[in-house]
Amino acid sequence: MCLSGTLEEKLAAIAAAGFDGFELFEPDLVTSWLSPADVRSRAADLGLSIELYQPFRDFEQVDDDQLRANVHRLRRKLDLMAELGVSTLLMCSNVDTAVDDSDARAVDQLGIAAREAADRGISIAYEALAWGRSVSTVDHAWALVRQVDHPALGVCVDSFHILSRGTDPAVLDDIPGEKILFCQLADAPRLQLDVLNWSRHHRVFPGEGDWDLADFVARVIAIGYRGPLSLEVFNDTFRQTSPERTAMDAYRSLVATEGAAFERLGSTSGELPPDRAQRMGFIELAPDSDGRLKAALDALGFERHGAHRRKAVDLYESGNARLIVNRAEAGPRARIRALGFEVEDVAAATDRALALGCEVLPRDHADGEAILNAVSAPNGAEIYFAPRAESGFDWAAEFTLTNDGPQVFHEVDHVVMEQSWQRIDEAKLFYESILGLSVQASSDVPGPDGLVRSLALKGPGGIRVALNVRPLEAAGRPGFADHIALGTDDVLRLAERLADSGVATLPVPDNYYADLDARFRLEPERLERFRRFGILYDRDDSGEFLQLFTAPIDDVVIEIVQRDRDYLGYGAANAPIRLAAQRLLASGGVASAA
Amino acid sequence: MCLSGTLEEKLAAIAAAGFDGFELFEPDLVTSWLSPADVRSRAADLGLSIELYQPFRDFEQVDDDQLRANVHRLRRKLDLMAELGVSTLLMCSNVDTAVDDSDARAVDQLGIAAREAADRGISIAYEALAWGRSVSTVDHAWALVRQVDHPALGVCVDSFHILSRGTDPAVLDDIPGEKILFCQLADAPRLQLDVLNWSRHHRVFPGEGDWDLADFVARVIAIGYRGPLSLEVFNDTFRQTSPERTAMDAYRSLVATEGAAFERLGSTSGELPPDRAQRMGFIELAPDSDGRLKAALDALGFERHGAHRRKAVDLYESGNARLIVNRAEAGPRARIRALGFEVEDVAAATDRALALGCEVLPRDHADGEAILNAVSAPNGAEIYFAPRAESGFDWAAEFTLTNDGPQVFHEVDHVVMEQSWQRIDEAKLFYESILGLSVQASSDVPGPDGLVRSLALKGPGGIRVALNVRPLEAAGRPGFADHIALGTDDVLRLAERLADSGVATLPVPDNYYADLDARFRLEPERLERFRRFGILYDRDDSGEFLQLFTAPIDDVVIEIVQRDRDYLGYGAANAPIRLAAQRLLASGGVASAA
Repeated sequence: MCLSGTLEEKLAAIAAAGFDGFELFEPDLVTSWLSPADVRSRAADLGLSIELYQPFRDFEQVDDDQLRANVHRLRRKLDLMAELGVSTLLMCSNVDTAVDDSDARAVDQLGIAAREAADRGISIAYEALAWGRSVSTVDHAWALVRQVDHPALGVCVDSFHILSRGTDPAVLDDIPGEKILFCQLADAPRLQLDVLNWSRHHRVFPGEGDWDLADFVARVIAIGYRGPLSLEVFNDTFRQTSPERTAMDAYRSLVATEGAAFERLGSTSGELPPDRAQRMGFIELAPDSDGRLKAALDALGFERHGAHRRKAVDLYESGNARLIVNRAEAGPRARIRALGFEVEDVAAATDRALALGCEVLPRDHADGEAILNAVSAPNGAEIYFAPRAESGFDWAAEFTLTNDGPQVFHEVDHVVMEQSWQRIDEAKLFYESILGLSVQASSDVPGPDGLVRSLALKGPGGIRVALNVRPLEAAGRPGFADHIALGTDDVLRLAERLADSGVATLPVPDNYYADLDARFRLEPERLERFRRFGILYDRDDSGEFLQLFTAPIDDVVIEIVQRDRDYLGYGAANAPIRLAAQRLLASGGVASAA
Repeated sequence: MCLSGTLEEKLAAIAAAGFDGFELFEPDLVTSWLSPADVRSRAADLGLSIELYQPFRDFEQVDDDQLRANVHRLRRKLDLMAELGVSTLLMCSNVDTAVDDSDARAVDQLGIAAREAADRGISIAYEALAWGRSVSTVDHAWALVRQVDHPALGVCVDSFHILSRGTDPAVLDDIPGEKILFCQLADAPRLQLDVLNWSRHHRVFPGEGDWDLADFVARVIAIGYRGPLSLEVFNDTFRQTSPERTAMDAYRSLVATEGAAFERLGSTSGELPPDRAQRMGFIELAPDSDGRLKAALDALGFERHGAHRRKAVDLYESGNARLIVNRAEAGPRARIRALGFEVEDVAAATDRALALGCEVLPRDHADGEAILNAVSAPNGAEIYFAPRAESGFDWAAEFTLTNDGPQVFHEVDHVVMEQSWQRIDEAKLFYESILGLSVQASSDVPGPDGLVRSLALKGPGGIRVALNVRPLEAAGRPGFADHIALGTDDVLRLAERLADSGVATLPVPDNYYADLDARFRLEPERLERFRRFGILYDRDDSGEFLQLFTAPIDDVVIEIVQRDRDYLGYGAANAPIRLAAQRLLASGGVASAA
């Protein structure tokens, strides 16, 4: 149920992603024209084992009539499992037909189930659903299993059902590993939602939610569990998007979670190369063919810029801010093409990405040039691993550079890129697991075309990457753009420079400045200068933040920011102004009342 | 914030829908290039009054420094309101900067605000947000307002903030109507979600959620409130879809809610013509040009069928089941074109629809023919109001009919039509307010392309209409179809008849029958007959339900159902089979293991 498609399509995607096996979810079988024997041979052909059949519901704590019907149903399913060649059945705690809360009745009836299963060489993994009528906790399920004391009966542990109740996973320490017959993993965002809907619609792969699944896995391994680690993730998005992509995302999640778990256990099995991003190295832009992007960059006056000795590539450099303009990729629309992150060891970072299911992209490279490997991010941007300047790598070496002016920027403050709703969870895992970034904030920005969901990630060395998901109905609509924010100490000076150069900046409504005045009571002269240049302002208890945006150059906005060191945000309160202004320009409007 | 677009676009949509005025939401102004004077004149030109300016946040219960900043902010906003010509300001209870829970401090500071406002001829409507730090209930807000006892201070009542907390709206009876300065209405689905997210993303217009807003409005009127009824609906979908459509939907909601409120108060003001659907009259189909739909209908053997005397229209009739095939609308793909509902009085039903913002569709009609008026449903289907047979109207009169066989159907059991996600809330309100249907169930059906959201509505005389919202990613994908379910007493006989005629039925996997056997322990011969004909089965405590589907004829599936009277559902457990089979056929698959 993690994947969309038919059973055939799911199996193909699971095998292609590199998994060892799968749980067979009954509805996938019931809606399939593959016979059980077909499924068995299809799995074998793909090199996949069927680790579990599930779910068997509402068996225990029932009255005698219902028990007879349940035993009939169980026998039929055990026969089916024999045809499939599956040796573990997942039995969920009763949510519907239980007649009382009696442990004695549950123990009796689970014993019957265990003996029926044992007769056919099958084991039952009993799982407490978080919304089970009487049995809803893993310790309760384990207490019943211990009382039944039958070799064909153990428990299934599912991170969702344990963590969603706020249960301390230390509860697992009381269960002998060999009595855990199966381990299912799911992460989830922290939502205050009823647990059934939370479970059925909002599970995500480990690393994509808010829980610590590495800790969960480490505990399960520590108590001796040696069975499969399986992903059981009900998610409305995964259910409708490409099963191949989702399976790869799932594989990455499991490898990353396992790696982190082994790391916590101090074990070297399953360890991943630790190298991750240390600092933003560069942003690569594909310019428009008309030279509008280059004109805007030239107007900003970078300290140094120049051409690559061999390729049609320009470098703009100021402090640690580096923009690379790849003229060979020039097209009708300027766009962000790649992000370069400095890593300690390019080879190790590449190995980490490979272990996590990435493919290294082909790259034109000559002897004597720095080795930079790239992989593809979920939104299609290329992500480069670049050597650190401290490692002796010299940016200047491959470029013929000229001095162009005083230092205007000190760093890339942040980058904002669009991300499709289909892959935002995958993107979070990608940046976290491959680059070592972590989520700083998630917010909804109201714009004229709807809410833009924004996920801000941060890393060491001041790395800040935000991913914006546009409203569904705005697909293909103009008025959205990626942006690159360059940090400066003097936005006003640059604003004047831009004004002189004729580079268009985003229009800002006068009403915004009236509101700023009401909210922050700024000095009138300062407010007037902000208004004149279209500078946006924010303040919190830690300091001030000033922003100036160029008008979009196709799909790219250049933002100039001046940040008090302790101000940690991105001027979220101003984001609706940016969206409104982009919409205005995209619809051919001008910055005055119509 | 109910609508998408710029302030200009919103005002145009509000005026076009027929509203008298609007609340001005500060973010709409701050992101607009219209000056306050422009907004004032634009509103006047459109015949709209600006009833309120909102929100003013976090004023009261603060320390002295914050109070000074707040008074500065308040004065600026009051000046702005004077420019706009707005006389009521919404002040929300403090959620952020309150330093304590002291009522005395709140009363002092609200008094300051009231005097500042009164100096400019403005009134403040104080609203308890459900998540206010100290003031979160309407009775608390009213207690503070009463203590301040200033003519420029009253309360704002908002149905969301009251009903979301489970507060009995009878709490309103203690507030004198003249101290309610504003009334905001929002409905919402019952969700177990934290109230802030519930409020910010999931509000809907009255009648589209689960609350009784007519009761709320009746109470407010009963205690003497005579101010505007305003819709304050934060909704992720409305924020991104056509503002014109949403404004019309909002208008319908308000008229319907007002009408129902007046009805409860026994008042005739604002009363709506009461006529609503009494029974399903007919389904009109636009056939494919190749005659496949007609061939399938002919194979089913209706009791009577024949041609309209004047138009290219055929009638198929059996019992109360009537299908109309409009050959003039034949196209490349067969589809459901219209639903006809019998009403007591066609003119009154039409007037009701007109009062609720519908337009009557043009229709070809000759003297002596029955008058049937139609309006357009949110999915584009035409909805006819048809006279009742009991009124002397005779279906046969306009058709040349032949007797073709024994009675095979007794009624239209139900109709399922696709509905876009953008208009599912609008659709619920449409069918409820115009036809008098009510929601029977809402469910998610898992299919190979994702979850299909299904909303089942029912009405008198056995009317059942379900609306299916396909997964987003399945837009434009084959494998989905509307369906018409015809009720019979003998599915097996019709199954044989269809088999003989060569009309294709939906393939059903053998695995389904194995599962049926496990679940229901059916008699083997009966199960085998089900399997042979592809009949689906369900059972609950009230009875049995049998279903047989034709293969899709373009966008139409004909379903034949046999229903024990007390079985109330639609065979929801079988819906995934239908989706899987439609997907199989759409992808060119055949009903055997590949």
